[in-house]
Amino acid sequence: MYRAKKDLILASASPRRRELLSRMGIKFSIVTSGVEETLCGELDPAVHTRNCARAKVDRAASMVGADREFWFLGVDTIVVIDGLILGKPKGKDQAREFLGRLSGNWHKVVSGYHLFHRPGAERVSNSVSSRVLIKKLGADEIEAYVSTKEPYDKAGAYAAQGIGAGLIKEIQGSYTNVVGLPLAELIDEMMRLEIIELAGPGPRERIARE
Amino acid sequence: MYRAKKDLILASASPRRRELLSRMGIKFSIVTSGVEETLCGELDPAVHTRNCARAKVDRAASMVGADREFWFLGVDTIVVIDGLILGKPKGKDQAREFLGRLSGNWHKVVSGYHLFHRPGAERVSNSVSSRVLIKKLGADEIEAYVSTKEPYDKAGAYAAQGIGAGLIKEIQGSYTNVVGLPLAELIDEMMRLEIIELAGPGPRERIARE
Repeated sequence: MYRAKKDLILASASPRRRELLSRMGIKFSIVTSGVEETLCGELDPAVHTRNCARAKVDRAASMVGADREFWFLGVDTIVVIDGLILGKPKGKDQAREFLGRLSGNWHKVVSGYHLFHRPGAERVSNSVSSRVLIKKLGADEIEAYVSTKEPYDKAGAYAAQGIGAGLIKEIQGSYTNVVGLPLAELIDEMMRLEIIELAGPGPRERIARE
Repeated sequence: MYRAKKDLILASASPRRRELLSRMGIKFSIVTSGVEETLCGELDPAVHTRNCARAKVDRAASMVGADREFWFLGVDTIVVIDGLILGKPKGKDQAREFLGRLSGNWHKVVSGYHLFHRPGAERVSNSVSSRVLIKKLGADEIEAYVSTKEPYDKAGAYAAQGIGAGLIKEIQGSYTNVVGLPLAELIDEMMRLEIIELAGPGPRERIARE
């Protein structure tokens, strides 16, 4: 539905982000940055995720030769409950603990994104917050979900786009933000910055209508 | 994460429903029923979708020999805005019209499901409603989306799990219900009826913990 007007680099290792962006028809390259999420500072979730997204972008930009024009996109997503940030669980016990905390409660998912143009030096960042209600989970359900191994590399120990879809009772806000890429907001921003454009009908159809 | 305890037949042609149920680990057979959705009567969306789900189940059951025990599952999903039910658009013009109506507005997505046990004759049905806000769409965006052909076989002319993900600004309620199968509710119901059970850790791990 869209196509890239500029060369775009996604600074993210997440297969979910790649899939969502590709699904829109947008072509991009990937440069993974290996930024430690604990290094983004700030306890405010919106600032934390924007900092982290910027750090990912700056690391990726430092890895790419400056002789060509690029837009860089970095995104960071965290799960917040009771003022605590839940990152990716370190093993089984922490996955059980995170899921126990989320069980039967609402939590927030916050994604920050950062767009950087080089050589233009333009920077745009924003954050999007959604609320998620996880259904009440029995210890046996937590055990069954942990044993699928899905929780390990997911912030908050669940994947909305995976088996975890069955654990989510309600969402308030952007669903794609919960997956890790707030599409509606990001597409509007990239359209405004003319990084992407509408693909529209094919050339033959366009001629026929003119 | 789950497994079927009973033989289950899904009375639905929707690839989205098949994918969601399979993703949970549940095995099932498919019998498509060809029920005309206009034949489900009733203007109340909850009753309409439950009627339709039951009609799909009864048609599927009539196609399957009664000499074996089965649970049948039927689901019907509709989009409702301004008291109007939007089904699958009949061609390009109606797709444009539906998307124009949804643009910038909240609408409801209602799914009704029906579970039927044979020979037990037990029947359970329910309906789930979610609210969806579609972002404000320009005529060129509607044109670009229609030209992807995605709207044609989707109730309300969009697919939340497809390119349409980029058109959705907010959801209030179950996301999987918007896709066409309210997972959290349906899993709870199927666990209660002992149609499915938790799969849990593999046998080796279970022995080690006993």
